[in-house]
Amino acid sequence: MPSEFELIARYFTRGTTHTTLGVGDDGALITPAPGQELVISTDMLVEGTHFLPDTDAEDLGWKTLAVNVSDMAAMGARPRWATLAIAVPPTPTFEWLDDFARGFFACADEFGIDLIGGDTTRGPRAFCVTILGEVAAGQALRRSGAGIGDDIWVSGQPGRAALGLAHLQGRMVLAEPRRAECVAALQRPQPRVALGLALQGLATAAIDVSDGLLADLGHILEASRVAASVQVAVPSAPTLERDAWLSGGDDYELVFTAPPARRNVIDALAGRLQLALTRVGTIAAGSAGAIALHDAEGHPLAIQRRGYDHFISPVDMSPDASPDA
Amino acid sequence: MPSEFELIARYFTRGTTHTTLGVGDDGALITPAPGQELVISTDMLVEGTHFLPDTDAEDLGWKTLAVNVSDMAAMGARPRWATLAIAVPPTPTFEWLDDFARGFFACADEFGIDLIGGDTTRGPRAFCVTILGEVAAGQALRRSGAGIGDDIWVSGQPGRAALGLAHLQGRMVLAEPRRAECVAALQRPQPRVALGLALQGLATAAIDVSDGLLADLGHILEASRVAASVQVAVPSAPTLERDAWLSGGDDYELVFTAPPARRNVIDALAGRLQLALTRVGTIAAGSAGAIALHDAEGHPLAIQRRGYDHFISPVDMSPDASPDA
Repeated sequence: MPSEFELIARYFTRGTTHTTLGVGDDGALITPAPGQELVISTDMLVEGTHFLPDTDAEDLGWKTLAVNVSDMAAMGARPRWATLAIAVPPTPTFEWLDDFARGFFACADEFGIDLIGGDTTRGPRAFCVTILGEVAAGQALRRSGAGIGDDIWVSGQPGRAALGLAHLQGRMVLAEPRRAECVAALQRPQPRVALGLALQGLATAAIDVSDGLLADLGHILEASRVAASVQVAVPSAPTLERDAWLSGGDDYELVFTAPPARRNVIDALAGRLQLALTRVGTIAAGSAGAIALHDAEGHPLAIQRRGYDHFISPVDMSPDASPDA
Repeated sequence: MPSEFELIARYFTRGTTHTTLGVGDDGALITPAPGQELVISTDMLVEGTHFLPDTDAEDLGWKTLAVNVSDMAAMGARPRWATLAIAVPPTPTFEWLDDFARGFFACADEFGIDLIGGDTTRGPRAFCVTILGEVAAGQALRRSGAGIGDDIWVSGQPGRAALGLAHLQGRMVLAEPRRAECVAALQRPQPRVALGLALQGLATAAIDVSDGLLADLGHILEASRVAASVQVAVPSAPTLERDAWLSGGDDYELVFTAPPARRNVIDALAGRLQLALTRVGTIAAGSAGAIALHDAEGHPLAIQRRGYDHFISPVDMSPDASPDA
């Protein structure tokens, strides 16, 4: 059975490219660049709550880091460093850890991240990543800057991860190529780092979709003390497809706001990044956090469910699993 | 039942004193001071591995942060910021979280730390803290600097936490005032931040005692590629007291090395800090990591157990629970 120190050495110690002192001491040392602020975020993923016990280890390694990279994207920051604490059962298999590490470092390589610290312990399977990024002083994208009249934009196709999960759980059947797209969105989310960096000075507020489009837009609205009008960009019949678009978590697309005068710039950005950027609504005066939902013909829709809260509905993504948060 | 967002708001959102943007966005923002390096460390504490299910919540809150503060002390850094991710069962009681938060923030206040990020999720009880500290560029205390002929020093009285645990588990009976001291060492460890800061430019290497004196000294020896001779500073009969001194984890005292020419300065430092600093041995040439152990009369002692490894022996602290790591 491998010891804690052997595990750390074997799977989680690699060279670094921009770190003063990496894994192996009581702490890592980094030297922030002058004029930069550091952005820090932390996430814990727990088996049974955030992922299923039979999740592919390599996918899980990727996702464990990717969900944190997404927080950097939502702040308009460049991800730079990460720490990883893992709890695994007393007899972890080498193969499982090897696969997990391969996925984790694939994501680290993709986004230029040094792993600078870790902790390996025995326990029910869980992972905790803290990520650090850099952003020019004063340029971070916050949730609190949305102004009345701003457009509301979303990247990509929110809802795909929830549909992928529904397919894997046998609650619906997706046909190819949609099936592969949706399962990939769930298992290998692509954080929108390039978009976040490009939105510096362009977006007035941003957040990533981890809990669902409406729920995460709601956080922007609450922080900015405004309301919103949102037009559903998928068929508005109460199907799983619509509910996934509105409330499916785990997509890691960005929702952001920008003045209407920026529409042309944002359309051009979509072309440059080869990433759909869709206007889905408008920031309005009103009760902070309130969202008026409309279908394509402008008819109002009642909101059944705003999003995903780990204390209310764990892995169950069914539309009726929980009341509004 | 409280939602994740309510939990975060209720227990883990407080004002900050030196943070650009705290809890409540996709990431926190900090502005490092010019000329400082950042020191980063992460630790995960899991119920049943690092603490017993009936551990007092307030003590646990203190200790969850204190063990990370100790890593800053061991690097000679000033702790400044922390993130906290917690997994708790689906029905956490308000009282438990309130007590945990009180202990956590008592430690944060004691050491001047802003809580800047968090994650609250459902799962088997576990806590993950990432701590960030500042140290003047080039001044961090590393494990790798011990030189042949250096003295080996230890702060305080290592072994007390292990004795406190043995007492609580009914494996021995401690009398007052030793009992209170040892239980406090286990439940409310006092990270040696002032000592770590004072050792900048004085110590050649340092580490904190989390896994046991010999095990953690071993890490210095391996990183510095040297050996050591250590004289046991407690009665050398194979008692629980001796084994706790040699191998008891969870004390968070500092072990450090310094040239003999610094003895007077270090003795004066002990007086100024009102903290025992004891010379326990000498760095020697030899196989990297090797420790020759002697009793007070200079007779060699065989080492039965070097330290604590979560993958070998969880909460069990009995001397024969595991072979040498």
